[in-house]
Amino acid sequence: MAGWEQHVRKVIPYVPGEQPRQEGMIKLNTNENPYPPAPGVARALREMDPEQFRLYPDPAASLLVDSLARRYGLASNQIFVGVGSDDVLAMAFLTFFNGKKPILFPDITYSFYDVWANLYRIPYQCQPLDEAFCIRPEDYERENGGIVLANPNAPTGVAAGLKTLQGILEQNRDVIVIIDEAYIDFGGDSAVSLIPSYDNLLVVQTFSKSRSMAGMRIGYAMGQPRLIQYLNDVKYSFNSYTMSQASLRLGAEAVAEEAYFLDTTKKIINTRERVKKELTGLGFVFPDSKGNFIFASHPQISAQELFEALKREKIYVRYFPKPRIQDYLRITVGTDSQMDILLSFLKDYTSIDRP
Amino acid sequence: MAGWEQHVRKVIPYVPGEQPRQEGMIKLNTNENPYPPAPGVARALREMDPEQFRLYPDPAASLLVDSLARRYGLASNQIFVGVGSDDVLAMAFLTFFNGKKPILFPDITYSFYDVWANLYRIPYQCQPLDEAFCIRPEDYERENGGIVLANPNAPTGVAAGLKTLQGILEQNRDVIVIIDEAYIDFGGDSAVSLIPSYDNLLVVQTFSKSRSMAGMRIGYAMGQPRLIQYLNDVKYSFNSYTMSQASLRLGAEAVAEEAYFLDTTKKIINTRERVKKELTGLGFVFPDSKGNFIFASHPQISAQELFEALKREKIYVRYFPKPRIQDYLRITVGTDSQMDILLSFLKDYTSIDRP
Repeated sequence: MAGWEQHVRKVIPYVPGEQPRQEGMIKLNTNENPYPPAPGVARALREMDPEQFRLYPDPAASLLVDSLARRYGLASNQIFVGVGSDDVLAMAFLTFFNGKKPILFPDITYSFYDVWANLYRIPYQCQPLDEAFCIRPEDYERENGGIVLANPNAPTGVAAGLKTLQGILEQNRDVIVIIDEAYIDFGGDSAVSLIPSYDNLLVVQTFSKSRSMAGMRIGYAMGQPRLIQYLNDVKYSFNSYTMSQASLRLGAEAVAEEAYFLDTTKKIINTRERVKKELTGLGFVFPDSKGNFIFASHPQISAQELFEALKREKIYVRYFPKPRIQDYLRITVGTDSQMDILLSFLKDYTSIDRP
Repeated sequence: MAGWEQHVRKVIPYVPGEQPRQEGMIKLNTNENPYPPAPGVARALREMDPEQFRLYPDPAASLLVDSLARRYGLASNQIFVGVGSDDVLAMAFLTFFNGKKPILFPDITYSFYDVWANLYRIPYQCQPLDEAFCIRPEDYERENGGIVLANPNAPTGVAAGLKTLQGILEQNRDVIVIIDEAYIDFGGDSAVSLIPSYDNLLVVQTFSKSRSMAGMRIGYAMGQPRLIQYLNDVKYSFNSYTMSQASLRLGAEAVAEEAYFLDTTKKIINTRERVKKELTGLGFVFPDSKGNFIFASHPQISAQELFEALKREKIYVRYFPKPRIQDYLRITVGTDSQMDILLSFLKDYTSIDRP
């Protein structure tokens, strides 16, 4: 070991999900949207002036912030933007979880929460979900340094109701409660409506799922102005210019077209509900997902076997070899025709006689 | 104060430089490049497929990493990329300055170093530059937890020679030495040539200056593979997908056109040298800048007065009201015609009879 290695921050390296790029593959493994971004995005891309790239972008990201403020009926000083919701959440962890008491989140949830806690040396305690993968609100009544809940949860798709969240917020007025709503637009009830009542609530959303913009890296947080101010103070201490000119311009366009947004999210919801019925018919079980994915298990066939069989067909889904969830596959909801190919394969595969 | 505020990480908010957008202004305040990015960038922008934005970008950023590796004659596992050099440097601070001993950097240097140290609770000690704004190598021989040097330095433009840097590297084999080369392409000697000899050297560069891409937020670090691996481990723990599809594609194009790069940097160097002569003629003094800016002082007129007089003419330069440098203006080197307007104003202004 070189001498300088003693000063290095050692982390358990996070391994991002596979990003295969195979001809003819069906990519249902990272919860991307099967539909393209709103048509205005293509238009704005064509109109962008590359000569302007020589200049720094607006550090306040006003074009994007104002467009989000209009969309959510909030003031511009209630919106914080970052390089995907991972950047926004990591900044929020760094900013708001600076105490000595452990922060709380479920044992089964978005896999980055413990990674950020480890990175920033934030103490944490995982609270077990119940057998149906639901949070138990009483678990969040103990003393803590903050709470983070994905709603709908990942990778299960289970959504908590606003009443449940409100109860948790009431019990935790002295810490920040982050609701990570990456998948909220596919059927859950957003906590944005609770922002006026709770100065300790931060709601985080993303352009990567419902807005078909994973490739442009845009996420945002919403809360009362004081929270957003604290986040901006830390962000400006880290990097004044996180959002490129392209992300600002194209992101603003993606928010502007509400009809397109409603149409594509509706299509995905419809496909999901149809696929649920068909999967049930094939013997699969799954919690009732409100996300753009289904977390499904088959009583007779192991998830790992199915994962590998699908991969041989160039159908990519996500498999987590972890306690409690190693019997499940997370299947992103694609287009109807993609799902038909998946279902047809699963129908054949599940009907094979097994000893 | 709300109860939750006790857990908030309080920072001294960094205030980014003004980004005025005025009709007819001459913007010489943030060291942007006056020339547009390489022609291939505009072409790649037109060819980009917005339908692909629905997909996550390549987390390994291979297109950009490989193009930088080719340009610098390094292997791809010797390159780390991030959202501007601020992102790269902040990640490097977080990764490599994790000890208890203070890190060292000059008292006059890039204003973000102490901000990141404060953000990440890294102890630091500033080492005073000498009267000519040069580093004193012996200051970097004391016990420390790491070293960061901007070369050429900001906001002075003073460059240290490779021999000096090599001496400091030799004396500090047990800590990481970061050389921040944001302005290296305007005439300094890059430490990239020292990478094979020093496993403790990290060289950081940016697309924001010599490559005219400030608006797209791209920075990079170069070093031996082990260093880059540690940086990537932390980066993947923070955010797997920091670089948008647009930054990857357009950044790769900006690196590809070497002739354009040489031509525009040469033009800026020529303009800088001419402006130096003319400023001397007007009575200004300045250290010999190797950056795309000149850090100039006038013995008879205060920098603040000049700053405000220029601003009234819509000529924006940078003024730092800080000890030791409050008599100086940092003037970005623009096009020849922009500089002529500046010089013509300064000629008139300095010739006014003063009591």
